[in-house]
Amino acid sequence: MRRATLATIAAAAGVSLPTVSKVLNGKDDVGAETRARVRRLLDEYDYVPVGARRAASGALVDLVFTALESPWAVEVIRGVVDSGLHVVVSSTGLSGSGAGQSGTGPLGSGQSGAPRESWAARLVEARRAGALVVTSRLTQADRRLLAASRVPVVVIDPVDLPPPDVPSVGAANWAGGLAATEHLLELGHRRIAAVGGPPGLLCSRARVDGYRAALDRAGIGVDPALVRHGDFRHGGGLRAATELLALPDPPTAVFAGNDEQALGVIEAARVAGLPVPEALSVVGFDDLPVAVWSSPALTTVRQPLAEMGRHAGRMLADLIAGRPLGAQRVELATELVVRASTGARR
Amino acid sequence: MRRATLATIAAAAGVSLPTVSKVLNGKDDVGAETRARVRRLLDEYDYVPVGARRAASGALVDLVFTALESPWAVEVIRGVVDSGLHVVVSSTGLSGSGAGQSGTGPLGSGQSGAPRESWAARLVEARRAGALVVTSRLTQADRRLLAASRVPVVVIDPVDLPPPDVPSVGAANWAGGLAATEHLLELGHRRIAAVGGPPGLLCSRARVDGYRAALDRAGIGVDPALVRHGDFRHGGGLRAATELLALPDPPTAVFAGNDEQALGVIEAARVAGLPVPEALSVVGFDDLPVAVWSSPALTTVRQPLAEMGRHAGRMLADLIAGRPLGAQRVELATELVVRASTGARR
Repeated sequence: MRRATLATIAAAAGVSLPTVSKVLNGKDDVGAETRARVRRLLDEYDYVPVGARRAASGALVDLVFTALESPWAVEVIRGVVDSGLHVVVSSTGLSGSGAGQSGTGPLGSGQSGAPRESWAARLVEARRAGALVVTSRLTQADRRLLAASRVPVVVIDPVDLPPPDVPSVGAANWAGGLAATEHLLELGHRRIAAVGGPPGLLCSRARVDGYRAALDRAGIGVDPALVRHGDFRHGGGLRAATELLALPDPPTAVFAGNDEQALGVIEAARVAGLPVPEALSVVGFDDLPVAVWSSPALTTVRQPLAEMGRHAGRMLADLIAGRPLGAQRVELATELVVRASTGARR
Repeated sequence: MRRATLATIAAAAGVSLPTVSKVLNGKDDVGAETRARVRRLLDEYDYVPVGARRAASGALVDLVFTALESPWAVEVIRGVVDSGLHVVVSSTGLSGSGAGQSGTGPLGSGQSGAPRESWAARLVEARRAGALVVTSRLTQADRRLLAASRVPVVVIDPVDLPPPDVPSVGAANWAGGLAATEHLLELGHRRIAAVGGPPGLLCSRARVDGYRAALDRAGIGVDPALVRHGDFRHGGGLRAATELLALPDPPTAVFAGNDEQALGVIEAARVAGLPVPEALSVVGFDDLPVAVWSSPALTTVRQPLAEMGRHAGRMLADLIAGRPLGAQRVELATELVVRASTGARR
């Protein structure tokens, strides 16, 4: 929607642009009648100075997902809505391979939406005050376009690290992997497997590195046969765990990289006739609502998705209002939540 | 945001209001120079006729949830986004007792947001083109306010029936309950229990009535001891199934009313040492992504949430564009999806 510019006001008032500018800035070297006419026109056309157009309070911002298919999307949306911004939810329409992006879910098919290329252009065209992007896959073209249009962007990123010059909010993945593995060590487990996500994702790497660090600290070497990689999906967890449980010296515990993979590990144990946690302990990562509904309820590392959304919303509000950010990259703490899927080694 | 009105344009052009109106409507009894001036001003001030202001294409609408806590919310959001509307997601901030509204989930606490009373007022004030409301709990005050402001509203309603004068999209709950129960009958089950949702919700009533109809058709009387009610939450399913499995003549199959309750029933079976489906068959309702991740994978009745969102979006676009609706109330078909949680009676 095009707004009246100073030039429009000047033309309508029949005065020069500097005159309108003087009236706006409260200078008094403008005749009373002219000032009154300009003020009236500014009112009539609801003129808003460029800076104030982007006032943060109640600003309309886009919240852009790679694909709206994940149960964790609603957690992020809730957090951003809580931050007080008005949130237009959209999707780039391209499936990512991110944590929990459940494209194979029963309703995962039929995802449409505009092609990836256009989302940044649409955003600029719609004159949003800013954007929160839930993906690290910002292309060079996207970033150039957003920078040129001066639309502030913050990346919410439970999956991967964005470029260092883009403000972002993530979670402490390494510390989470460490905590999950130390919990299993305290329960007496020594054959502890890890099923990471896609090895190319830094969050996955960080979680598995935390697992390695815990084993090293405990003086237990990492057995390469016990480290597998899935795709952060149920099927990946199921396949990896099926292989692990068929080893001559199988693990008694698995750190599963995310909740969806952990549910796949639990299913592999059920199929193999191994009760959880009696014969196999399982730890997830995310703490989605489904972790509580798992049978048995899942011990997991809580990634504070709603808080991440809320924090990113506040960062974006600061950028919109022209306030400097305290930090470009914020990592919120993760926390181990112990439920029923882990138990002492027998 | 205030837009230029015809009066503003007339004042700026120094002509009468009827003259502007004539130019707009293509009448030719206006001098060429005046017509050109008015046209230029209409362009400059980006004047949009009242009717077209609410054009459906790319219209900004609110999508209002009672509480943004449910894994099915993302399915609805995806469907609405697919319909081409620009969707501002918001929450009335009051928890409902709807299907799958997981307020007790690990991230369910800390829900804030504006109080219920204000959402309709906020919507009107923000001058949205329309609203999709995912709750049937429209108060009289909400409805009066929306009617007075002429903001079109469509209710997306997987839970309950809205007032008959409010356009709405739901699912065929009764037919779903019938299909779930007939599936269990075909597998040879005769002691089939039902765990409904809150008895006050019509969707819950319809599902259980479908269950009764299937048993009647099969010539099997309904045993009142086998019909329980939960709260559409995991804990409700767990409690009801724990009681059912402790009966002297326990059921061999349970129709669980929704997916979250079905997962609670599966947990009750695990705790009781009863393998699913060998000792107990379980059917859910919804087909959330989590149904696939259940251990074992859940047989359930698919409620097409994304399609419901898409359909409601199209109805709202019609209302915004002033096109008449084909029907005030649309029920989309449900469909039985057979997975691994149901098997032949042993």
